Amino acid sequence: MDTVPHKAVCPATLGFVRNQWYAIAFSHEVGRDKPLHRICCGEPMALYRTQAGEAVALFDRCPHRGVPLSYGRIVGDAVQCAYHGFQFDASGACVCVPSQDYIPPELAVPSYTLVERSHFIWVWIGDKDKCDPALLPDHHELGLDRAGWQAKPYFVLEIASNYSLLFENLLDTSHISYLHGRALDSGRMALATFRTEHDANTVQIVRDLKGDTPNPSNAKQYGLAAGVTFDRELRSIAHLPNLHVIRNTFTFPSQPGHAAHVRINIMPITPATQNSHYQFLSLSASYPEEHPQSLIDAMHSVFEEDRAVLEAIQRLYDERGPDLAEYSVNADGAGLRARRRLAALAEAPS
Amino acid sequence: MDTVPHKAVCPATLGFVRNQWYAIAFSHEVGRDKPLHRICCGEPMALYRTQAGEAVALFDRCPHRGVPLSYGRIVGDAVQCAYHGFQFDASGACVCVPSQDYIPPELAVPSYTLVERSHFIWVWIGDKDKCDPALLPDHHELGLDRAGWQAKPYFVLEIASNYSLLFENLLDTSHISYLHGRALDSGRMALATFRTEHDANTVQIVRDLKGDTPNPSNAKQYGLAAGVTFDRELRSIAHLPNLHVIRNTFTFPSQPGHAAHVRINIMPITPATQNSHYQFLSLSASYPEEHPQSLIDAMHSVFEEDRAVLEAIQRLYDERGPDLAEYSVNADGAGLRARRRLAALAEAPS
Amino acid sequence: MDTVPHKAVCPATLGFVRNQWYAIAFSHEVGRDKPLHRICCGEPMALYRTQAGEAVALFDRCPHRGVPLSYGRIVGDAVQCAYHGFQFDASGACVCVPSQDYIPPELAVPSYTLVERSHFIWVWIGDKDKCDPALLPDHHELGLDRAGWQAKPYFVLEIASNYSLLFENLLDTSHISYLHGRALDSGRMALATFRTEHDANTVQIVRDLKGDTPNPSNAKQYGLAAGVTFDRELRSIAHLPNLHVIRNTFTFPSQPGHAAHVRINIMPITPATQNSHYQFLSLSASYPEEHPQSLIDAMHSVFEEDRAVLEAIQRLYDERGPDLAEYSVNADGAGLRARRRLAALAEAPS
Repeated sequence: MDTVPHKAVCPATLGFVRNQWYAIAFSHEVGRDKPLHRICCGEPMALYRTQAGEAVALFDRCPHRGVPLSYGRIVGDAVQCAYHGFQFDASGACVCVPSQDYIPPELAVPSYTLVERSHFIWVWIGDKDKCDPALLPDHHELGLDRAGWQAKPYFVLEIASNYSLLFENLLDTSHISYLHGRALDSGRMALATFRTEHDANTVQIVRDLKGDTPNPSNAKQYGLAAGVTFDRELRSIAHLPNLHVIRNTFTFPSQPGHAAHVRINIMPITPATQNSHYQFLSLSASYPEEHPQSLIDAMHSVFEEDRAVLEAIQRLYDERGPDLAEYSVNADGAGLRARRRLAALAEAPS
Repeated sequence: MDTVPHKAVCPATLGFVRNQWYAIAFSHEVGRDKPLHRICCGEPMALYRTQAGEAVALFDRCPHRGVPLSYGRIVGDAVQCAYHGFQFDASGACVCVPSQDYIPPELAVPSYTLVERSHFIWVWIGDKDKCDPALLPDHHELGLDRAGWQAKPYFVLEIASNYSLLFENLLDTSHISYLHGRALDSGRMALATFRTEHDANTVQIVRDLKGDTPNPSNAKQYGLAAGVTFDRELRSIAHLPNLHVIRNTFTFPSQPGHAAHVRINIMPITPATQNSHYQFLSLSASYPEEHPQSLIDAMHSVFEEDRAVLEAIQRLYDERGPDLAEYSVNADGAGLRARRRLAALAEAPS
Repeated sequence: MDTVPHKAVCPATLGFVRNQWYAIAFSHEVGRDKPLHRICCGEPMALYRTQAGEAVALFDRCPHRGVPLSYGRIVGDAVQCAYHGFQFDASGACVCVPSQDYIPPELAVPSYTLVERSHFIWVWIGDKDKCDPALLPDHHELGLDRAGWQAKPYFVLEIASNYSLLFENLLDTSHISYLHGRALDSGRMALATFRTEHDANTVQIVRDLKGDTPNPSNAKQYGLAAGVTFDRELRSIAHLPNLHVIRNTFTFPSQPGHAAHVRINIMPITPATQNSHYQFLSLSASYPEEHPQSLIDAMHSVFEEDRAVLEAIQRLYDERGPDLAEYSVNADGAGLRARRRLAALAEAPS
């Protein structure tokens, strides 16, 4: 059978998987100048750092009169509300009511558990008893904090669509030649056949390219010498529901002993509301070449092209309802698998 | 009885008459550079031309993943979706799925029947078995495609109100002196008495002016010589639900043999959504004089003045509900007749 | 008990108290150039003056075809609709239908009772039989129209929140040091203890400061000489549901015979819709010193700071519903009393 029947799950209205870690900010975005506002699975939060440098995330609404704490300022280890100066510490406890000495112990704001690792800050908004740092992505595998590798944060986009649409986008390389035809050196890659792989935690598609030689652009990107021939594996990996990874591996069969070059696009995906989400981009690499600014600019353009179509899809669902028909083909297999798995995760009893 | 009782039909929420032809674009707006987005009676469409020049209108949503086809580009006789490159031909059939050879025959997008005549493209969104080109407006009568006449398209406005409000506006010349007092040479015309005429297909008001002489402005507009005296008939004709015409006829009783001069404002009216519609303007004339740019600019200003009040009326209905009272006077007779006829057409079993 | 239990009344959705006078404009805002649009308790109105200078407020929608009368122009003692030129006089009666001689007597628009006193125009939108000028604020007490005093209008803000949030803001001086820390000479005042007073018509908080001396800023504002010592009483008075007053009284115990200096911030508060209201500012003073422009600018900045937090509070209620929890402390006593009284007034049978 060549086609997949009509969708059973609407990709514009997928719910949240609450018991998970979500990247909520790059480390460098959170400081002591002023709190940062972000939303994770519908929870607005204000992020800042204590004097000791610990990152803190509090529910972004003062329990006194309802002003967002992100409107406030940072005083010592607390955030001070912009309106009446109430202060809340890293645990969310109120530590100052300017107009009185007595502080009611029940006067507090929810505080979220954070883990900062490498240059990401991850938040847990789910059940406290299920919170486990072992559930974080494997930072070694991602090339973050790995000897001999380099890893850097680049940018974060806020996209006005359900987060599931981005996973499907990233699991489908067939759109590259069309949506990104001008931006990417994508001709051969888009035509390459692919295979789908999946395991308990991921949905993956893999494309292989044999006997390529670098053009000026990807030579620089991938730290390759002119004239060298190589094989390339592009592996697009959805770690549902919170991370997508694209792993490029260059091997050199004609040069025994030449170590493989690996570059990983690390893209945490964090649902903000039902129809908005964040997409982060960091790059890690096993080789010392700097990523030129032109590469980052090109990737930013590509992400913006994706953003435009994802937002257009979402708008039509928002205007015309979740029952719009959808027709799937073979290339959508991985995306549909990811969508169904997200739906199952979102509906699972927590 | 001098007044008409309160409305029974809300003019801000009138429904669509689906089994009709609607002008969806001027011919020159539809080409091969990129698809044109329009909406007709709630149906979004992407318009383009095939290599042979045939105009095509497809439902503006790719059936694969939901991106508007108007975001795409034109490839041969097909439109290619911006996202994954699926192509759909003039019939709406999918003719290319880049990622596979097999094209499921049921993979298609609705295609709308178009008729292009003179410089208008008309669309039929209703029942296929009721579609009949004989129902199109009479192009000969309108001075389109008529020997010795000239006819040209000028502009199209998108107005954020129900389309019925524009028909009522155009059937009421009493507003001209007030809303358009500065823009139009309208003093005598607004004061002239009028009569209402109607037949099975139209509602009309007619004003007659006897023994006028041209001022510099209308002499140029109507191809008249200085000093000539003429009678003028202004006939405002609602062809419900899709066209309004204003026919000016100048006759010269004191100059036997002087042919009448006729100028027709051809204004197709096309509902887009319940609270938006398009108003087109073409002019045809039985005489060779060019319409000066100053006339077109003046008409554009007048249409913009109408747009402002129609949108203000609509906003108050949208904010306060459809039951707002309305008080009608004699001059509203034709407009109310048109409104009731529109309501009957919209509610008729199709 | 040190804290007040969770709110029973949502401050973002409080209803209107219809049988009351509301300031709808400063006198100088209403003239004969063009009508002024305002909204009072959900009623849109068009304000203008007759030839004799009488202020008029009509429901802002022509009863004929629904165009806002504030789009029109003033002709003699009437407002003329922009669309068809219907004219309505100060009583709301139609006095001209351009297209016919007969004017149906029932063709009229609601007219609101206005009282203009000093530099304010007050409107009554409630039951006609309950309308009583004796219910107007006491203009003598406010320093308006009072021999030896000066009083001037300054500005009006439109704030996108329920009006009750502004009363609570003004009954709580504890926010001054935080929200307005940079703008106001507020250090000692914010720390001063306060007492709550209330009577049948007002809720008040009072702060006393003993033995102060003027700094360059408040010397100029309050007409004080350098070196003088004084006591200061700041009395913040909510006249629910339509006026807030801040009365500063400077007395000079060490200088027997030195008259007290009084400055009053007169701030009518007028609900427009459920989530918007107007705040007016006039100042009256018992002493001859001019209020420097720098003071007015500082007060405008302070009001804008208040506006920002009130609108942020409202947005969170609008997004997340009226049941958001709120935690009150001692300093909120006066504000909560005002809120409950507003709720009782709004729910009272009229």
